[in-house]
Amino acid sequence: MNQPVSDGSQKYSVSIIGASGYSGAELTRLLLHHPQVELRELYAFSQTGKPVSELYPALDCDMSYKSYNGETESDIFFLALPHGEALQLVPALLQAGKTVIDLSGDFRLKSVLEHQQFYKQAKSPEAVMTYGMPELFGEEIKSSKAISNPGCFATSIILGVAPLFLSNASIIKVRSITCTSTSGISGAGRSSKTELSFSEMSENVRAYKVGIHQHTPEIMQALGTSTSNPSFDFTFTPMIGALVRGIYSVLNVQLDKPSDMEDIKRHYRNFYRNAPFVRVRESMTEVRHVYRTNNCDIHVAHAGAGGSLVIVTAIDNLLKGAAGQAVQNMNIMLGIDERTGLS
Amino acid sequence: MNQPVSDGSQKYSVSIIGASGYSGAELTRLLLHHPQVELRELYAFSQTGKPVSELYPALDCDMSYKSYNGETESDIFFLALPHGEALQLVPALLQAGKTVIDLSGDFRLKSVLEHQQFYKQAKSPEAVMTYGMPELFGEEIKSSKAISNPGCFATSIILGVAPLFLSNASIIKVRSITCTSTSGISGAGRSSKTELSFSEMSENVRAYKVGIHQHTPEIMQALGTSTSNPSFDFTFTPMIGALVRGIYSVLNVQLDKPSDMEDIKRHYRNFYRNAPFVRVRESMTEVRHVYRTNNCDIHVAHAGAGGSLVIVTAIDNLLKGAAGQAVQNMNIMLGIDERTGLS
Amino acid sequence: MNQPVSDGSQKYSVSIIGASGYSGAELTRLLLHHPQVELRELYAFSQTGKPVSELYPALDCDMSYKSYNGETESDIFFLALPHGEALQLVPALLQAGKTVIDLSGDFRLKSVLEHQQFYKQAKSPEAVMTYGMPELFGEEIKSSKAISNPGCFATSIILGVAPLFLSNASIIKVRSITCTSTSGISGAGRSSKTELSFSEMSENVRAYKVGIHQHTPEIMQALGTSTSNPSFDFTFTPMIGALVRGIYSVLNVQLDKPSDMEDIKRHYRNFYRNAPFVRVRESMTEVRHVYRTNNCDIHVAHAGAGGSLVIVTAIDNLLKGAAGQAVQNMNIMLGIDERTGLS
Amino acid sequence: MNQPVSDGSQKYSVSIIGASGYSGAELTRLLLHHPQVELRELYAFSQTGKPVSELYPALDCDMSYKSYNGETESDIFFLALPHGEALQLVPALLQAGKTVIDLSGDFRLKSVLEHQQFYKQAKSPEAVMTYGMPELFGEEIKSSKAISNPGCFATSIILGVAPLFLSNASIIKVRSITCTSTSGISGAGRSSKTELSFSEMSENVRAYKVGIHQHTPEIMQALGTSTSNPSFDFTFTPMIGALVRGIYSVLNVQLDKPSDMEDIKRHYRNFYRNAPFVRVRESMTEVRHVYRTNNCDIHVAHAGAGGSLVIVTAIDNLLKGAAGQAVQNMNIMLGIDERTGLS
Repeated sequence: MNQPVSDGSQKYSVSIIGASGYSGAELTRLLLHHPQVELRELYAFSQTGKPVSELYPALDCDMSYKSYNGETESDIFFLALPHGEALQLVPALLQAGKTVIDLSGDFRLKSVLEHQQFYKQAKSPEAVMTYGMPELFGEEIKSSKAISNPGCFATSIILGVAPLFLSNASIIKVRSITCTSTSGISGAGRSSKTELSFSEMSENVRAYKVGIHQHTPEIMQALGTSTSNPSFDFTFTPMIGALVRGIYSVLNVQLDKPSDMEDIKRHYRNFYRNAPFVRVRESMTEVRHVYRTNNCDIHVAHAGAGGSLVIVTAIDNLLKGAAGQAVQNMNIMLGIDERTGLS
Repeated sequence: MNQPVSDGSQKYSVSIIGASGYSGAELTRLLLHHPQVELRELYAFSQTGKPVSELYPALDCDMSYKSYNGETESDIFFLALPHGEALQLVPALLQAGKTVIDLSGDFRLKSVLEHQQFYKQAKSPEAVMTYGMPELFGEEIKSSKAISNPGCFATSIILGVAPLFLSNASIIKVRSITCTSTSGISGAGRSSKTELSFSEMSENVRAYKVGIHQHTPEIMQALGTSTSNPSFDFTFTPMIGALVRGIYSVLNVQLDKPSDMEDIKRHYRNFYRNAPFVRVRESMTEVRHVYRTNNCDIHVAHAGAGGSLVIVTAIDNLLKGAAGQAVQNMNIMLGIDERTGLS
Repeated sequence: MNQPVSDGSQKYSVSIIGASGYSGAELTRLLLHHPQVELRELYAFSQTGKPVSELYPALDCDMSYKSYNGETESDIFFLALPHGEALQLVPALLQAGKTVIDLSGDFRLKSVLEHQQFYKQAKSPEAVMTYGMPELFGEEIKSSKAISNPGCFATSIILGVAPLFLSNASIIKVRSITCTSTSGISGAGRSSKTELSFSEMSENVRAYKVGIHQHTPEIMQALGTSTSNPSFDFTFTPMIGALVRGIYSVLNVQLDKPSDMEDIKRHYRNFYRNAPFVRVRESMTEVRHVYRTNNCDIHVAHAGAGGSLVIVTAIDNLLKGAAGQAVQNMNIMLGIDERTGLS
Repeated sequence: MNQPVSDGSQKYSVSIIGASGYSGAELTRLLLHHPQVELRELYAFSQTGKPVSELYPALDCDMSYKSYNGETESDIFFLALPHGEALQLVPALLQAGKTVIDLSGDFRLKSVLEHQQFYKQAKSPEAVMTYGMPELFGEEIKSSKAISNPGCFATSIILGVAPLFLSNASIIKVRSITCTSTSGISGAGRSSKTELSFSEMSENVRAYKVGIHQHTPEIMQALGTSTSNPSFDFTFTPMIGALVRGIYSVLNVQLDKPSDMEDIKRHYRNFYRNAPFVRVRESMTEVRHVYRTNNCDIHVAHAGAGGSLVIVTAIDNLLKGAAGQAVQNMNIMLGIDERTGLS
């Protein structure tokens, strides 16, 4: 999956629309230090005129936020906006020939019906972008100019079970996946909600959107099925815990027949042999192991007899779950090593 | 399940063996303020001679720890020892006619084989104590003098699914339970392990003992089955998160046929109608909601179509998961209101 | 300072105005379990109609919040309102003959000028309440019907240095106090500010209001001096840290001559000999030592030669720093043991 | 203070002795990505044979720890050992002509008496290394081959007050400094002490070593004086709080006459005009602002009238307080931009 490294002589101009949230700030950090990027504009409507150093002093960035008014001067645009806003902006950017990477959920679902059901938004059916999960769709990404970046929970879940679906389908068949994922609180965005205050979330864990989270159809789609006619049972309970960053997913998988653990691990290692950011680990994964990295760690175990697997995955929700994966996608589109600016 | 309140004139002398750990400290706190208890001795081998105020200044307790050498002067003995140590002490206490409540795992499993498999310890088969879960076995507890206090994970899981098993068995049948539970770090005890240091556990989540946790057979036993010949599939993944106290369990339950949510909730409310510490809640439960209480909060939801339930429970691991439930058991044995000293 | 215990037969009706914030919730918890209190109404304008169990499930309280419209049916009123609001309500309550305990800063400063300078509010000069710090002004409190409850920082600082001022003045003279205090985030109230979100405050410490905090004149007043003509130099830097509850104050005190540490400690112990909630401790104090208690722990040390002292104090900001001290004041006014309902 | 950038063609071989602690791990991370470093060996006696990926999976490092047996093959040696151990190893390394950067306290104090008093260790008086604080002693560092890296508290305090001492001495005179510093728990090292466990330190703050911390003489020495004959009063209270990384120092400074705040700020800005890692900030500093950076943020304010200053500084204890400053020192010694590998 690695690309030949370009000679590094070329610089691409890049702008971020929605740069003041947590994903936008991580994009800013990554792109400021990316050797082939010139960061041109940081757009953030709500912070117009404010220096980046006021919101994020740790970024050591001397730019200021601007309002976005349809400018198309950059080569590449990252959009890190609340759900619904990219729908308005992406068509014009694509028409202007720009490379676009959208971090929202606006273009993730190919099914207009599922989009309307889970995002409660109308959507023009012609809007189509490539689903930017490099470990599964690297070839499509390479030739795309429009990427819909995966959701954070979705990334941690899809990477955990993809090897069971996307190859060797003849030998493994999944009957059900029961998934419980803990997210860091930054996943809720830079927020002023009382329920996300330190006083409310310290020493706390809370589940939400049981059975109705919008990443459910995204996961089904990436695994080749749909919520309306699923090829396996899928149950997903998202939670937030008392941590800022990270997603930790416990995936209970029922197969149709007993499996050999060594076979499964070998298959996982082989499946991800060219994926520099996926690590299939013998020992248990922890959030700390991937903290501030673009890695996805995967640990596979038998829960007991009878074909039942417990797969545990860990990512940093702001990196592999958002900004890091977005830069990885950009690298692939530019034909440079996908690790550039990410280690 | 409530008992007639005694006239409050009687005081029972109580001692704690293993008083210096976190469960022991919570027992100390509860029993110091219990209106019908005179706390007599605090035994803690490793802290012999130290004042309680040195380890736990917040307890405002002027007693000191002693070594336990077989004394039997108190009416009631609580044991909060590492697994394996109560096995040695309980027989003599019972022979001396004492009331004993053991918080360890030593006497929880009736099957000697399961005990040996999950605790890696030999066990004399004649040692039998009543399993002290008041909401299920209140009548047995009332007439018992020897209580084995349930495990913290086990409490949060058993209470979450018991209504599906222990009544109306003719109308509901459970096919599988997939459980993921997050525990506070105090569950690992007062510890000096590097892996439990603040620097390692802040911003972290970690699963452990996947498929082999010793509470598995305890849960099966309480639900009327066993690990060797289970009547349903059971998968349990315990985790620790970045919090001190609390257990949060997400229980995915497959029933054999579609269920009506209002029926299920009505059944839960009815099942626990006399259980003052169990709250079946309409809104989502959170760890904070039960923090420093003896409550178990339960929220029941449909994960989707097809009979699949998501049941979320929250307890404080040191109270309902240990010391609080132990005092609740004592109250029941003494024939006083089970809430005495617990609100 | 202890009062003769009343026979416990009398119950006082109590209402809380401003019951939905963190101090109000702690008051609710304490008063619900206070043996001589019947909690009558919980007023909270912003939460009118909501059950307490929605905001604070851990309270196990089945009351609902109401709007306050001038009712005077209770015997005792606690006010836990934002600064400025009690100014409007207290006069009418006092005129109606009610006992009033106000937790805001509205009535703490006797100097109208200082009040206007530090609270930016006009204030009628005739409004006078007793400053409710039981360890210093117990006799006044006993005969008062109107208490202004001290500020949280002020409590932790005044108790730390009061023995140097309020007795033996002939032998000890304070030249300067330099104070740095860390508060838990709950001190900022039940808030929806972005800067108090978990994502912003985890792993953080932040100073604020350097040299201008409104507790400065309160401290000076309690120690018998004023900000306009101080008898010693006073510098105060408040901070918030990554904890929910607690105030930890480090007080550097310059005396006018070398002091003997054993003399100082003996003096402190003697000064607080009748104060059940103040503990002068040989070993270092920590926030955890007073967590969820009404205690103030004090540790006194020499910073070096030359008369310089380092006094470290710890309180729980919501208890000794707010609701706990308010209940302690009520107890004293009622002539019952000041510890009632607080241990 | 910036150096001409070398052409980048040269690589230096570097080894770390004591690589498995937190400072060693940060050094590993920085040096793995340093463009002019080839990381050769990671020595860690207690972890001999273990892969780095077992202790620190987030480092993405495929080396293993070795025992150190006197090897001298590398060009540059970093030592991150417990206090006392570098004393044995440094002389041989220097004799072999190696460049040495020691992160311990073994060589910080020029006074043998002060060393013995504060470190309780004998010390050969001939061992002399350059005190590696680039902002103050950049010229000496440039021509040195042996660097003693400053302590973390010392860095945060010295940088905060150095402008008041090391220039314009004729116009400003410091009478006293009273300092309270909060450190993240990682400052205590990778530890298995019960008192540093998550369960003990969550929601906690604790002072320690009041008046006797070993960074006191280091600070005095850097400011041109000594503990035995100080030119100003100095009081230092270190604390640990509920955070992993960071040091936050509140420095109360008494000057001998009133000062103009704009003059002071201009002087600070001028003093650090060539120091790329020191930021004199108009708004209040916070730990988060420097999290995972090599910056030292400084905010200067008046505490009140009369010449009293409150200076607040923030650093990341593992970077500017340890590994980051050590790499900065290496860069200066190598004649390359001091920021190389640090942004």
